[in-house]
Amino acid sequence: MNTITTIALDADDTLWANEDVFVSAQQRYMQLLAPYRADWDAQELYDTEQRNLAYFGYGIKGFTLSMIETAIQITHGAVKGHEIGQILDIAREMVHAPITLLPTVAETVALWSTQYQLMIITKGDLFDQESKVARSGLADYFRHVEVVSEKHPSSYAQILRRYDINPQNFLMIGNSLRSDIAGIGNRWAGDSHPLSLDLATRAC
Amino acid sequence: MNTITTIALDADDTLWANEDVFVSAQQRYMQLLAPYRADWDAQELYDTEQRNLAYFGYGIKGFTLSMIETAIQITHGAVKGHEIGQILDIAREMVHAPITLLPTVAETVALWSTQYQLMIITKGDLFDQESKVARSGLADYFRHVEVVSEKHPSSYAQILRRYDINPQNFLMIGNSLRSDIAGIGNRWAGDSHPLSLDLATRAC
Repeated sequence: MNTITTIALDADDTLWANEDVFVSAQQRYMQLLAPYRADWDAQELYDTEQRNLAYFGYGIKGFTLSMIETAIQITHGAVKGHEIGQILDIAREMVHAPITLLPTVAETVALWSTQYQLMIITKGDLFDQESKVARSGLADYFRHVEVVSEKHPSSYAQILRRYDINPQNFLMIGNSLRSDIAGIGNRWAGDSHPLSLDLATRAC
Repeated sequence: MNTITTIALDADDTLWANEDVFVSAQQRYMQLLAPYRADWDAQELYDTEQRNLAYFGYGIKGFTLSMIETAIQITHGAVKGHEIGQILDIAREMVHAPITLLPTVAETVALWSTQYQLMIITKGDLFDQESKVARSGLADYFRHVEVVSEKHPSSYAQILRRYDINPQNFLMIGNSLRSDIAGIGNRWAGDSHPLSLDLATRAC
């Protein structure tokens, strides 16, 4: 078996809770709009987000613009200025939400950093992600932090080339089968070592 | 004199016009709000942007959230849903605005790429900046594209270390004295070669 020398970890929902921040923001948002229409579900917001991905990408700012757009849609334009202002307040709270590390992350990362070169490879908004790394208290354990706009095989290939890392010595860990694991692509799947979080947790 | 082997260029308003896109968006935005208050100037929007930098960083999405917030402020909440919708339309048009290369950029970059390792080092939103590089038609001339959230001396130091570039062989070119030139910092100023656009144009 090949020797692993570099371990790259996804960040959101691998190192720290992230989905919770969006779910809680979305609940407050739906309460805010309940007086206009109590029976709507998150699907309409989700559809706006998907449509806007090509314009705004991933992250809190894009999500906020989609919340505002959906609010205008479902209220047929009747949403008030001060209610839009409250959506902006939700966004600011999301940006500065405390970082909650997932169980065993702090000690696992500390231990691994003595044995491997550690990297973060995370998708999303550069500003959000750098801020979360800084607030996580984990920054010193990671040699490199790479924020990419999409996790395509070419993004992984570029990062491995940049740091002169042989895929045979590289392990990628993440919670998303699609982007962290399958995203490595066929080109690397035979050589590198993509692991889902279940396997990684077992490896601890 | 030391030999330059790597030239890094700023992107916005160094390779292509960018300020124009914001100025034109701002003009449409001010026209949109003129019925509420004809006499306001851009200072109020600028103040909101500055306040929001710590939450949203630089780029079109942060600018749009600040346009929306300022619209609520100056109309005392009376701005209509469909008008906020028009601000979102302005944002989408900004994101997909055509890239206008500045004069002589295309031929200069093509020529330099045969003699130097070229990089882009640009501040801003990852999604916006990658999209502009892709649409510029210049991507193939640049060996590396680095999007940073701030141009601090430490950001430059990290990039030079990452690619194992000796500051004595490094030239940084940009239109902003503050971030592209002074941003290199004292640590590098003695070794590296920061040039303002005027000097760089002369060097062509």
